[in-house]
Amino acid sequence: MTQTQQSPLDPDDLAALGRASTATITTQLFKYGLRNTYLPGLRPQSPHAPRMIGEAFTLRYIPAREDVDVLEVFNDHEHPQRKAVELVGPGQVLVMDCRGDGRAASAGHILLTRMAARGAAGIVTDGTLRDIEGISQLNLSVYSTGAAAMTNLALHHAVDLQVPIGCAGVPVYPGDVMVGDSDGVVCVPRHLVPVIAQAAAEQEDLETYLQQRVAEGAPLRGTYPADVQTLEAYERQRSRVEVPSN
Amino acid sequence: MTQTQQSPLDPDDLAALGRASTATITTQLFKYGLRNTYLPGLRPQSPHAPRMIGEAFTLRYIPAREDVDVLEVFNDHEHPQRKAVELVGPGQVLVMDCRGDGRAASAGHILLTRMAARGAAGIVTDGTLRDIEGISQLNLSVYSTGAAAMTNLALHHAVDLQVPIGCAGVPVYPGDVMVGDSDGVVCVPRHLVPVIAQAAAEQEDLETYLQQRVAEGAPLRGTYPADVQTLEAYERQRSRVEVPSN
Amino acid sequence: MTQTQQSPLDPDDLAALGRASTATITTQLFKYGLRNTYLPGLRPQSPHAPRMIGEAFTLRYIPAREDVDVLEVFNDHEHPQRKAVELVGPGQVLVMDCRGDGRAASAGHILLTRMAARGAAGIVTDGTLRDIEGISQLNLSVYSTGAAAMTNLALHHAVDLQVPIGCAGVPVYPGDVMVGDSDGVVCVPRHLVPVIAQAAAEQEDLETYLQQRVAEGAPLRGTYPADVQTLEAYERQRSRVEVPSN
Amino acid sequence: MTQTQQSPLDPDDLAALGRASTATITTQLFKYGLRNTYLPGLRPQSPHAPRMIGEAFTLRYIPAREDVDVLEVFNDHEHPQRKAVELVGPGQVLVMDCRGDGRAASAGHILLTRMAARGAAGIVTDGTLRDIEGISQLNLSVYSTGAAAMTNLALHHAVDLQVPIGCAGVPVYPGDVMVGDSDGVVCVPRHLVPVIAQAAAEQEDLETYLQQRVAEGAPLRGTYPADVQTLEAYERQRSRVEVPSN
Amino acid sequence: MTQTQQSPLDPDDLAALGRASTATITTQLFKYGLRNTYLPGLRPQSPHAPRMIGEAFTLRYIPAREDVDVLEVFNDHEHPQRKAVELVGPGQVLVMDCRGDGRAASAGHILLTRMAARGAAGIVTDGTLRDIEGISQLNLSVYSTGAAAMTNLALHHAVDLQVPIGCAGVPVYPGDVMVGDSDGVVCVPRHLVPVIAQAAAEQEDLETYLQQRVAEGAPLRGTYPADVQTLEAYERQRSRVEVPSN
Amino acid sequence: MTQTQQSPLDPDDLAALGRASTATITTQLFKYGLRNTYLPGLRPQSPHAPRMIGEAFTLRYIPAREDVDVLEVFNDHEHPQRKAVELVGPGQVLVMDCRGDGRAASAGHILLTRMAARGAAGIVTDGTLRDIEGISQLNLSVYSTGAAAMTNLALHHAVDLQVPIGCAGVPVYPGDVMVGDSDGVVCVPRHLVPVIAQAAAEQEDLETYLQQRVAEGAPLRGTYPADVQTLEAYERQRSRVEVPSN
Repeated sequence: MTQTQQSPLDPDDLAALGRASTATITTQLFKYGLRNTYLPGLRPQSPHAPRMIGEAFTLRYIPAREDVDVLEVFNDHEHPQRKAVELVGPGQVLVMDCRGDGRAASAGHILLTRMAARGAAGIVTDGTLRDIEGISQLNLSVYSTGAAAMTNLALHHAVDLQVPIGCAGVPVYPGDVMVGDSDGVVCVPRHLVPVIAQAAAEQEDLETYLQQRVAEGAPLRGTYPADVQTLEAYERQRSRVEVPSN
Repeated sequence: MTQTQQSPLDPDDLAALGRASTATITTQLFKYGLRNTYLPGLRPQSPHAPRMIGEAFTLRYIPAREDVDVLEVFNDHEHPQRKAVELVGPGQVLVMDCRGDGRAASAGHILLTRMAARGAAGIVTDGTLRDIEGISQLNLSVYSTGAAAMTNLALHHAVDLQVPIGCAGVPVYPGDVMVGDSDGVVCVPRHLVPVIAQAAAEQEDLETYLQQRVAEGAPLRGTYPADVQTLEAYERQRSRVEVPSN
Repeated sequence: MTQTQQSPLDPDDLAALGRASTATITTQLFKYGLRNTYLPGLRPQSPHAPRMIGEAFTLRYIPAREDVDVLEVFNDHEHPQRKAVELVGPGQVLVMDCRGDGRAASAGHILLTRMAARGAAGIVTDGTLRDIEGISQLNLSVYSTGAAAMTNLALHHAVDLQVPIGCAGVPVYPGDVMVGDSDGVVCVPRHLVPVIAQAAAEQEDLETYLQQRVAEGAPLRGTYPADVQTLEAYERQRSRVEVPSN
Repeated sequence: MTQTQQSPLDPDDLAALGRASTATITTQLFKYGLRNTYLPGLRPQSPHAPRMIGEAFTLRYIPAREDVDVLEVFNDHEHPQRKAVELVGPGQVLVMDCRGDGRAASAGHILLTRMAARGAAGIVTDGTLRDIEGISQLNLSVYSTGAAAMTNLALHHAVDLQVPIGCAGVPVYPGDVMVGDSDGVVCVPRHLVPVIAQAAAEQEDLETYLQQRVAEGAPLRGTYPADVQTLEAYERQRSRVEVPSN
Repeated sequence: MTQTQQSPLDPDDLAALGRASTATITTQLFKYGLRNTYLPGLRPQSPHAPRMIGEAFTLRYIPAREDVDVLEVFNDHEHPQRKAVELVGPGQVLVMDCRGDGRAASAGHILLTRMAARGAAGIVTDGTLRDIEGISQLNLSVYSTGAAAMTNLALHHAVDLQVPIGCAGVPVYPGDVMVGDSDGVVCVPRHLVPVIAQAAAEQEDLETYLQQRVAEGAPLRGTYPADVQTLEAYERQRSRVEVPSN
Repeated sequence: MTQTQQSPLDPDDLAALGRASTATITTQLFKYGLRNTYLPGLRPQSPHAPRMIGEAFTLRYIPAREDVDVLEVFNDHEHPQRKAVELVGPGQVLVMDCRGDGRAASAGHILLTRMAARGAAGIVTDGTLRDIEGISQLNLSVYSTGAAAMTNLALHHAVDLQVPIGCAGVPVYPGDVMVGDSDGVVCVPRHLVPVIAQAAAEQEDLETYLQQRVAEGAPLRGTYPADVQTLEAYERQRSRVEVPSN
């Protein structure tokens, strides 16, 4: 089930995806019949962090049990939560399945500091985080439903790594690409990354242009969606300006 | 069902309502037995926009169906969502019934930019919006439960305009007056606007005064609610200062 | 049921608790088998206020009834909500049980202004507050699920004071100690205050140190949890720096 | 807060109310502006029991705490839950506020057997009951959201008796009259019992007649609501048949 | 929006659909990419009624408002709820959008008696019904989330007929075919009725056969899904027994 | 993670547990500090089946994805759902984690028929089942939140077997003992089976006796909990009657 053998992603595709908003990406996935790729209810907790993009490294929790989930478990370096923190690779995103239960935190400041130090690209949980003020100062993209002070042991039992999970009602397979911005997080199935990446970047550029035209007074008709004349005007301006390639 | 024949609203009443907070307005409506006029769960998404006041222009969504709600529908200028954007009048508020389902957005940056350009007074949805960062920069009062990247077609089918709707559990009829501030949005039934507008403005002025007295150390007894002496003191100060008339 | 005879709290314990984060405090309580002491879903509404610590003064609401809960009730100075505002002592925290129903506010700007003037340490509700913008300017720690404009009479009937209540699903007895920070609010059962206060402060100091080490690149192993060497290093540094005693 | 001094209820009024369905009673209360008197979500658990009518005897729970709510508490005869069982009077209905949390039971077979033996008129909880199969055999009207095996101590702490409570979102004051049938439970504020009882019984008789006419093919127009001719036909038939007076 | 011009449905298709279970029908619709056709949460309320099949006749409710939704509205024969009862045709199913709010009933015994008398094929609401005991005796297929005594006026305002609605989160257009059995209700988009009806009936027959084989001890492999041998055995038995054609 | 090496359970312990109600078992587990062992919200769907007891065999689902979860997957005999059906052993209980989402079924009539034929002791899901009428006729103990017609592929992706799961918010490890009766289902951690089994059976016998005494008019005091005299009376009667030993 661990997906170590996955074919590598093309850096150009990642760069293209990284230029697209999560809104644009869901539209591209929608074209391929995928309607459940956006993780609803998660908000960015790290105002100073860059947009998030990286491969999913998954951690699964089940409900805690009082005789199993005691503070002493953290003395074990093989505890899945602690192991995950030291295994999530540079450029990867730790995605945690907390069954949407945010009454106890999924993780806290020290663990997220460690992941930031190790170069993780981001943290996503359908639960909450503790020490949210410290976390908000890290240079790490973080998404959760909010904060909670309670230790994860009270409700969550970390059980395994790198298995397919549900997060906020969305299937996330290890190696899928997670993208995050102000609207939240979208999960791009790995095999669709090369399929949609360039189209997403192009849609993004076009819509940025169209939004400006609408801001200047253009009506929807002819502009959004763009008719032939608008598309020609867009192409003319594109050839004039330096569009950043990634 | 469209309410084009409605009697016009008195600009003085609108000005008076516009001076009152949503908290004050709910109290005034409560006096007339209306307990369900506040739209719970909606938060302002536009920190730079002014307070919102305007007539409701309604748009109703039902759940989407995969064979009907495809990207091509937006090529049709008669699509109800797109039509609504071009029909909502200056000073009106677009109110969308998304059945409280925010897992897909009700609308996004380009459509809201167009509404801002056309002079809309605001946007209200019991769902979410996409491109929330761009939206937050618009000079447009916007209220939603939050953000979501997913295109509305994944879950929402725009079906008709200017019919009575429910929004966040509150009945909204076309032509009702929507008022929004930091506490959220209240719907004032149109026929009650002349009934409560002046009283709301007066309550607002009085309570502003009372809050200052309490801040200066006055106890509740005698101050809130105000007794005769406090009311006299209020009247004296009112005659001294320039109370803005709207 | 009122708990006027409770033994006084040791100011040193309160000072120690006041130095610990709510995350740390839930861990300490967890050691004693308490898993339900954090009030989930409440957010700080007062960015400028200090951290909150104080004894709980409780107010219980039941659902409103149309013939009982009319505006005239506020002319009665014995109305429990108004009475609570004038009875909550300096350094106490008003904790309101609104059954988690935030569609109408628990209280508003004038009442909270009065409590600030009387020296209250904070306000906690599992519902909402109105006039949230004014409230956010007060020098008072305030926690709620958000804002709502609707007057409390529409849904809430204040019924009694200083009885044990549930707030956000957590039992709160009068005299328990409420602590609040950016993560939200935790309720410390009064009899456990002397038991955990010093340990909480010590955990806080240690974890602050560990977080810095991790930020500087230390791995979890050996650092978190700390092994003997790390603990010795911590003790050495502690003896060098001036740790504030409260 | 205990309401021992309440004026007695007229047995004729109780008999009349007892003849009316809960549907009819909510309509009568609605005429007086009360829209929140029906306890949604509760189902009858006792197929063999008669319709329920009796005065509310209330029991309030708050969330449990692990150090307080241990099995030993039941050795104390003053424990509020056990005390309630021995205090609820013949013809009274025990109404329990479990904050709508049914993950642990409010009570079980032995306690309900005792209440049946003592002549209680019924049991109402907005939570659940355990040993539901045994309970369903008792000659006692029982309403809950369903069953749960877990002991109440896991989640519920019985805290006081005969105080106003919320049950399923409805205010219930001690001494109010609880009526139950297949549709569930309605709470009639005590002071309205004499106001609506006879009208409810009369509406019931009329609607029974109207339903038969409609079953025989009568259209709504003229029948429901009844016009003058239908009312005259009803009065003629009424004078012929023996309408039971209670 | 009223869909009076719809092409008629083929009685053979309706007969075929009527032979298929709702489980089978959802599978057939799933083949065409429709994943949201089953109305979750509704239970049959009429144990003695036949399976339900009929065209949808829709009724839309919005939230009630205290000054509009008073008992006197029922004196108006044009009131949409009452009008719907007299307009729903023989063989049609009244489908009500109550926004999933069952705290007040959508309709009651007398109205459903009238619909039964007029030959309606069924009643579907995503809310509740009152007088559920009487309703359960009618020869009418009825689906709701349960019962509630409260009059619909307390929460629901009937607003229009024969418009597309959402019911239990599923889009329902007037003229769609509603099928109900013990599992609940499925909505078949009208244009797909001829596409799936025969296939559904055939799947039903095959699966009835397969279930019997499995009951007799056949393993899944080879039986479900059926391999060539199993299919041949099925065809042989089919030619022996008299399969009812509808 | 598969737990094939688990020490065998003592048949006497299973027999003893099988005599105890789920209510009694939760009380016994509560004594050991376990408060979250009952699976709330599940109802028995098989009125004719015996009480359920057996070891948990687990199946985990994540949310479905449109490109992965298509009907063709069932042609693969290694599909986890189908594999589970053929692997669950005689006397075992299949426990499915559907994340509490019952809008699509977890399984249907044919699969449950197969499991009944293979001698499974029961089926537990925190979702729903399809073909519920057929299922209710099987000689198999079945627990779910209700029924739903929709195929599981629409929402659920079966992902792995025999891993620890959450079901209805409760941790379930492969090999734990699941017990079910009219109140629902409780999960007994495997290592606690020998610890509580005999005590549970004894509590059951005693409480059966106490319930009879209370039914005959005994007050709670002295009877429940039982005092020395009651216990002696119980022991005397026990020695007279033939108490079945398992």
